Amino acid sequence: MVNKLFLIMAVIGVPLSIAGSLFHFPTILMFVVYCLTIIALAGFMGRATESLAILAGERIGGLLNATFGNAVELIISIFALKAGLVGVVLASLTGSVIGNLLLVAGLSFFVGGLKYKRQEFNVYDARHNSGLLVFAVIVAFVIPEVFSQGMEEAQKISLSTGISIILIILYLAALFFKLVTHRGVYQHKADAGNDHEEEAEWSMGKAFAALLISTVAVAYVSEKLVHTFEEVAETFGWSELFIGIIIVAIVGNAAEHASAIIMAYKNKMGVAVEIAVGSTLQVAMFVAPVLVLVSLFFPTPMPLVFTMSELISMVTAVLLTIAISNDGDTNWFEGATLLAAYTIMGIGFYLL
Amino acid sequence: MVNKLFLIMAVIGVPLSIAGSLFHFPTILMFVVYCLTIIALAGFMGRATESLAILAGERIGGLLNATFGNAVELIISIFALKAGLVGVVLASLTGSVIGNLLLVAGLSFFVGGLKYKRQEFNVYDARHNSGLLVFAVIVAFVIPEVFSQGMEEAQKISLSTGISIILIILYLAALFFKLVTHRGVYQHKADAGNDHEEEAEWSMGKAFAALLISTVAVAYVSEKLVHTFEEVAETFGWSELFIGIIIVAIVGNAAEHASAIIMAYKNKMGVAVEIAVGSTLQVAMFVAPVLVLVSLFFPTPMPLVFTMSELISMVTAVLLTIAISNDGDTNWFEGATLLAAYTIMGIGFYLL
Amino acid sequence: MVNKLFLIMAVIGVPLSIAGSLFHFPTILMFVVYCLTIIALAGFMGRATESLAILAGERIGGLLNATFGNAVELIISIFALKAGLVGVVLASLTGSVIGNLLLVAGLSFFVGGLKYKRQEFNVYDARHNSGLLVFAVIVAFVIPEVFSQGMEEAQKISLSTGISIILIILYLAALFFKLVTHRGVYQHKADAGNDHEEEAEWSMGKAFAALLISTVAVAYVSEKLVHTFEEVAETFGWSELFIGIIIVAIVGNAAEHASAIIMAYKNKMGVAVEIAVGSTLQVAMFVAPVLVLVSLFFPTPMPLVFTMSELISMVTAVLLTIAISNDGDTNWFEGATLLAAYTIMGIGFYLL
Repeated sequence: MVNKLFLIMAVIGVPLSIAGSLFHFPTILMFVVYCLTIIALAGFMGRATESLAILAGERIGGLLNATFGNAVELIISIFALKAGLVGVVLASLTGSVIGNLLLVAGLSFFVGGLKYKRQEFNVYDARHNSGLLVFAVIVAFVIPEVFSQGMEEAQKISLSTGISIILIILYLAALFFKLVTHRGVYQHKADAGNDHEEEAEWSMGKAFAALLISTVAVAYVSEKLVHTFEEVAETFGWSELFIGIIIVAIVGNAAEHASAIIMAYKNKMGVAVEIAVGSTLQVAMFVAPVLVLVSLFFPTPMPLVFTMSELISMVTAVLLTIAISNDGDTNWFEGATLLAAYTIMGIGFYLL
Repeated sequence: MVNKLFLIMAVIGVPLSIAGSLFHFPTILMFVVYCLTIIALAGFMGRATESLAILAGERIGGLLNATFGNAVELIISIFALKAGLVGVVLASLTGSVIGNLLLVAGLSFFVGGLKYKRQEFNVYDARHNSGLLVFAVIVAFVIPEVFSQGMEEAQKISLSTGISIILIILYLAALFFKLVTHRGVYQHKADAGNDHEEEAEWSMGKAFAALLISTVAVAYVSEKLVHTFEEVAETFGWSELFIGIIIVAIVGNAAEHASAIIMAYKNKMGVAVEIAVGSTLQVAMFVAPVLVLVSLFFPTPMPLVFTMSELISMVTAVLLTIAISNDGDTNWFEGATLLAAYTIMGIGFYLL
Repeated sequence: MVNKLFLIMAVIGVPLSIAGSLFHFPTILMFVVYCLTIIALAGFMGRATESLAILAGERIGGLLNATFGNAVELIISIFALKAGLVGVVLASLTGSVIGNLLLVAGLSFFVGGLKYKRQEFNVYDARHNSGLLVFAVIVAFVIPEVFSQGMEEAQKISLSTGISIILIILYLAALFFKLVTHRGVYQHKADAGNDHEEEAEWSMGKAFAALLISTVAVAYVSEKLVHTFEEVAETFGWSELFIGIIIVAIVGNAAEHASAIIMAYKNKMGVAVEIAVGSTLQVAMFVAPVLVLVSLFFPTPMPLVFTMSELISMVTAVLLTIAISNDGDTNWFEGATLLAAYTIMGIGFYLL
């Protein structure tokens, strides 16, 4: 049913996006159209990636998921970087991190917790992820912030470039660890066997075609979307920061949000957590450093230096996530705590 | 015996307080009298609340404890706010948080550890509390500090008000979780049955009367106390900050301090930890936000923005508490570590 | 074999150091000679201490290890303080902390993990150490940084002195806890019996003589080394900070680094972690405060106030170590994560 809705949205949304930009429809209207179209197209990309991942086997499939999982966000951000909107891109990275850790995980825990008194997930995965969250957000994002205070622009970019390369290498190492050297080593008993029944929804050809077409369409619409930000910000009295943190992050991750919550409701809390935390790690260890490297080819390079508000939001979100998820057990109240933290940050960014 | 002492102190202290303020006794003397009188009255309030809680049943009893547990501090702070002493109130909130986490828990672990080699408490509770400590202190207190750097006064107050409302809602949700939806779900085997033997010390009428009378008396004496701060600070060369952080926090929490240590000595470490950490959460998630909201009706509203020294003291106290208590096991050395941290902060605030 | 190499290095290095300083050999050459000589001499001091520790029995042996374990670093630092190089000393303390936590532990986990899929160590020790790491680095180092922002120089020194005394007392208390009141209480089953087969390599007399002679030699060479820093920094375009953080820290700890990695390769991960984290705690709770107290007798006293970059590096290193080691289980990827963090900080300090 959701799939049908997405199909209709895409079939209407893409031509409407083209028409709108040709005939100069009102910007605010087009902003909404672009957002909805991207959400629908992201749904297709997700389904195509999933089918390809199943057909390609676990290892290459894992790699595919790890690369295309946040493709939409990557594409929107590249167009924003091209338009010189460095601040918006950093804000949307922040929005993705706190959105995944607090909003997606929070809703999953809360909704799942309304149905089940206690839900469990693999505590080994949680601890493995804790280490990576601390590494990516608390080491790799905090260090350039503090060190760059006394640096010139060129040194900032050198430091950011160096850190980005290390982040990408460690991200690949994490995949190698998970898919090759330690596959199944830390498997939870309850999880075992879960993956076997999966069957690809689409054939290889169909999935490949869908991925190609929707990626091109997302790229087209993203470029249009990026150019509406300024007017939308003015009209609603929002800062571009707020658009980046709340709107772009939600649009770029809507499809994942939906599936995490559905998984939680089906008591597959391990999958829900994997989506939320895995997506965070992908943004922090892959999307962010790739954007830093890509930006070197644009007129305004992007240093890995967030505003203090963005950085502290991400750091405290990580600490809260670890404090709450380290026991491998969730309930509605833990979800409510995460949602409360997200609301506090939302108010803060709105008032900023 | 302690009860008799408190009775004598109250019977002498209250009239003396009235006489002292009428006939202008020396301020320093009256400062001491006020402090001792409040400590004695707080003892009565604690006993009355406990009796009422037992008579009212677990749910309403839990609610009573959660509301009146820090009533003395709330009352002193309201009078301080009325007198415009915003800095003193924020300092005394800080003092309560670090006092409970480091001094009360530290003394409990240390004194209990002198008698027992290892003492255990419910590790589920410890983790539940860890999550809330991180939420309240590291998210809800840190965010306004960082975000308000670029804000005007009006926005600071909006942000503080929003955060305060969320804190109170989550505090109520935590009570609902503990007393209704998840009562006994995370019960420790060893704890079960502990609560059954309790009998109310006083009848409903007597407890209610005692609570009413001692609350009125505390209010009266608190107002007097607040007006001695300036002169005491001058006389001893202390800052008002130091008075707030060390003196007010100890006076406001003396009764709880005593019972936590007694419980530790009786090897009921779970109760001791519950008092120390529970009281911290009450201050951070109920007393502090209520004071922010109450202050909106006074000439000087209080934003939820601490000084950097106060904030960092609370944040590091929370991190140390979590690192030490997360294993559900205590000994004298863990107590010594907490006390050492308290001493370091005490020296810092004294020299500031 | 390593021992023979160290013997040759020392036998050549010490006379060469004397000759070099008499006849004014080129500074850069002598810098290298001094460094290698100290590494060799540190190896002797380590072997002598170990022999004495075994002969003296567990308690006094533990005390000996705890005092002489970082003697080389203490000696170099005292000469640097005497030469007024406060910044270099603080930097080398930072270098020791992040070097032990990230480089030594990282290499141990990584090298051990190449041979073994999973390696375990005593989780009780890990948690005990976590508490002390948070106390020493996150409380005792962060508090003076934040509080001293509004302080005059004299108050900074008072605060630093007070904190140093508390650190040393707690360090002694930790030894008392480990060696007297709680010896064996938290022993890991797998570890038990490991220590019994140890035999002293040297006799009491030989060990004592070796310790005395090599300490005197280290002191002599250290004084020479300290005076080469300025020219080395100029020649290579390094900051003195970088020399302190990377070079001094590696030279001062080379012997320990080697033995930790050898232990990890022999699957004695408990010993490897004990060396890495134990050495960190020794630096933070004993070497650093002793240096603060010693500096009171020199013209420029050293406050316990690091630069923000140093402090944040140590704090994030501690948080990463705790996130990674709290499960008592290591693998190559956890080692890679620690090494990646060390590299990021190394780039940062190089560019600073």
